[in-house]
Amino acid sequence: MSSTPARRLNYDNINPHVKAAQYAVRGELAVKSEEYRAKIAKGDLDGLPFKQVISANIGNPQQLDQKPITFFRQVLSLLEHPKLLEHEDVLLNQLGYKSDVLDRAKWLLKNVGSVGAYSASNGVPAIRQSIADFLERRDGFPANQADIYLSGGASSGVNTILHIICADANSGILVPIPQYPLYTASLSVLNAKCVPYHLDESKNWGTDLDTIKASYEKAVAEGVDVRAIVIINPGNPTGASLPEEDVRGVLEFARQARLVVIADEVYQTNVFVGQFHSFKGVLRKLQQENPDGRYDGIELASLHSVSKGMVGECGHRGGYFELVNFDPKVQAEIYKFVSITLCAPVIGQCLVELMVNPPKEGEPSYELYRQEYDGIYDSLRERATALYEAFKQMEGVECAEPQGSMYLFPTVTIPPKAVEAAREANRTPDEFYCLRLLEATGVCLVPGSGFGQKDGSQHFRTTFLAPGTEWVGRIIEFHKGFMDQYR
Amino acid sequence: MSSTPARRLNYDNINPHVKAAQYAVRGELAVKSEEYRAKIAKGDLDGLPFKQVISANIGNPQQLDQKPITFFRQVLSLLEHPKLLEHEDVLLNQLGYKSDVLDRAKWLLKNVGSVGAYSASNGVPAIRQSIADFLERRDGFPANQADIYLSGGASSGVNTILHIICADANSGILVPIPQYPLYTASLSVLNAKCVPYHLDESKNWGTDLDTIKASYEKAVAEGVDVRAIVIINPGNPTGASLPEEDVRGVLEFARQARLVVIADEVYQTNVFVGQFHSFKGVLRKLQQENPDGRYDGIELASLHSVSKGMVGECGHRGGYFELVNFDPKVQAEIYKFVSITLCAPVIGQCLVELMVNPPKEGEPSYELYRQEYDGIYDSLRERATALYEAFKQMEGVECAEPQGSMYLFPTVTIPPKAVEAAREANRTPDEFYCLRLLEATGVCLVPGSGFGQKDGSQHFRTTFLAPGTEWVGRIIEFHKGFMDQYR
Repeated sequence: MSSTPARRLNYDNINPHVKAAQYAVRGELAVKSEEYRAKIAKGDLDGLPFKQVISANIGNPQQLDQKPITFFRQVLSLLEHPKLLEHEDVLLNQLGYKSDVLDRAKWLLKNVGSVGAYSASNGVPAIRQSIADFLERRDGFPANQADIYLSGGASSGVNTILHIICADANSGILVPIPQYPLYTASLSVLNAKCVPYHLDESKNWGTDLDTIKASYEKAVAEGVDVRAIVIINPGNPTGASLPEEDVRGVLEFARQARLVVIADEVYQTNVFVGQFHSFKGVLRKLQQENPDGRYDGIELASLHSVSKGMVGECGHRGGYFELVNFDPKVQAEIYKFVSITLCAPVIGQCLVELMVNPPKEGEPSYELYRQEYDGIYDSLRERATALYEAFKQMEGVECAEPQGSMYLFPTVTIPPKAVEAAREANRTPDEFYCLRLLEATGVCLVPGSGFGQKDGSQHFRTTFLAPGTEWVGRIIEFHKGFMDQYR
Repeated sequence: MSSTPARRLNYDNINPHVKAAQYAVRGELAVKSEEYRAKIAKGDLDGLPFKQVISANIGNPQQLDQKPITFFRQVLSLLEHPKLLEHEDVLLNQLGYKSDVLDRAKWLLKNVGSVGAYSASNGVPAIRQSIADFLERRDGFPANQADIYLSGGASSGVNTILHIICADANSGILVPIPQYPLYTASLSVLNAKCVPYHLDESKNWGTDLDTIKASYEKAVAEGVDVRAIVIINPGNPTGASLPEEDVRGVLEFARQARLVVIADEVYQTNVFVGQFHSFKGVLRKLQQENPDGRYDGIELASLHSVSKGMVGECGHRGGYFELVNFDPKVQAEIYKFVSITLCAPVIGQCLVELMVNPPKEGEPSYELYRQEYDGIYDSLRERATALYEAFKQMEGVECAEPQGSMYLFPTVTIPPKAVEAAREANRTPDEFYCLRLLEATGVCLVPGSGFGQKDGSQHFRTTFLAPGTEWVGRIIEFHKGFMDQYR
């Protein structure tokens, strides 16, 4: 008997750039929390000090309490099974469908064809036009459907844009810290350079131009070919909603440094303080205010998605990006790149259309839509505020006022004894804290190190999507015990 | 007035590996055919010698004639709008839903939760189990749900697998020629090496081990680190369905050369001659027959999808891959990689479940399902045969008998005068032929050069999905005129 031949692939010989990527949002703690959840689902509570897992680690609204918006789902049901449209009376009189649901489904079927067919690589033309119309309404400036690309969630759009921009290992992208780890992970896989710039926690996690400039100049001095800047607005994980002044500042800096602007605006409707200022809208205003054309060279890619906001349909993987002022030859390469994976999920594309073109006042589905939309918005704001109030009362915890997105990102001052215990456990202090919290309460957070944070500071990110306040109480109680143990 | 500042990105400074990628299936001819289609849709037939565009360039069944399978779509409609389940009597008595449709929808909703929520990164556990059960029934050998990864179509699965295997620019993958250009395009983007091996046209496009070995040895002699071999069975673009002997031969070669086997089996139900032999099933048989363990070291990744077969639901972007004998540490990296883009579309995952677990004999939806399934199968076979008969009669055209998949890939002997005209037009002869065909008939094919072919030979790929025979007549007529002009 010969021994089993060795495998061809092992940890030491696979793609090192994939190995280098980090993605804590779905990392060790998330996996552990799913194991707890499976254990509880089997009725096995042995040795567990909690009866329920709270997944506050990921912005996954419909996994928790958020209900889908009825109008959206009614239309999607008809797109999946168009034969239902042969029974209009039943739909209208017995099943609660309104006439505008039927009209929209028919319009989409006419323009999309079967949702089971591939669409054009960049998305269904009529849906791109509907998005362009939405952008025009939102910003007050024209948008061109030919510059819009449907994508499988915003993540796949980011992947496309970074693939085009990064030419080699020396290409650098300015990425905010803390950041959503999609950016650093994608840059690792691409073997390009992440050029981190810190957001200003003292100013509600706003952008600080001096800091950005310093990061840029340091990278350039090191020979990095810095090509673009990423801004997440409203912020993830920070929850910051940028004032117009910050957006202007970033665009001005991008102009001076000749950087492509990548604006991740998936939380554009999750804004509680002030209002959302789109990069596209502010750029067009700057162009209008400066007829010398100095802003006309800026390239902007802005992203949106059905995953967040009051839509919350992450599982459908719908999204799009709009390109402003990209070279047509570069756009042709983007088109080819997206065509290799054929097209974004077509039912997700339809959901994008519904998101950007919801029922209007006076239309039959409007009232219910408004009620559902506002209900979700208000409830998110209430939960954010309740969580914020709880954090304010916790020893050594400081948290910026909730402004937007679905997250709070408080600082925790972890006592030296706990830092020491973490070191002994071969953990960073924030990891140690979050792991202990998970084991004690079933609440899953993401340690700040998963997003990046200033050296020596400790944070965690929590969504405020989970219903009720009982789980917040669990965090408060755990925190008190933790501090008592290690103070 | 200053002039507009130059853009940061231009064709010369973006990612050269994206530029190097080629993807003819959705290339210039496809774009041109869509322009014709848009022109015709506007009622503008000016100067067009045809009234209809036939997209025979891409395996997109539902864009053409293929209807979705009722059971699948009924279940999906309920998943999209679960409130319909509050009206069971209406569904059953007025809308044509059967009780097993409702049961399946409830089961999926129980196990998936909302289709609007992210699932686990590797897919919904219950769906992975259902796939494992299917594989066990299909192959007669156990399958483990932990080795199954849901993906957004097979394309995204291929992207994942190649990302892990290719460690640097010297990593090589054996790819059949002709091939589906996803492989060469993905390897270009990854900046890894495609090691081409030719299929044997004289043996119905089967695998020829001597040819594979010669390609492998040549690459190794050039210093390439050859790591894996791709097999597409049934073949795309060739339509070949491999006999068990060929599958065994490839596995034996993979064992000797220590290659990971990537089996693209998305056409596994599109088989007209003989039967489908899965790589997993044949590998397990080889292991059983050889208790010395010599086959135990082979790593296999096999892919499947809802896009092809009698399902034909490409727009839903559903698929999966199964890993056999991969190192757990390598699998952990695969899990992390797929988690960066969060999860495959959840409604597409549900469609995978329906595909692998369709209604069984005796269940209420079975009869209609069987009828629809067989109708599609028979009609595809009839169309393939009709097209094959037509090609047999065309001067200078030779075509292998249709065996499987959705394509025919005939050889065309293009007369020297036409080759000369092509050169003058700065085209390859097959491109020239297909472009002229499109302009004359509205039928869009893909030139053989888009898939690779032996030097000096000319082919084209056509799907046999389009209904009717009128378009086949158009090809025959064009071909006659083309030959008369250039003979």
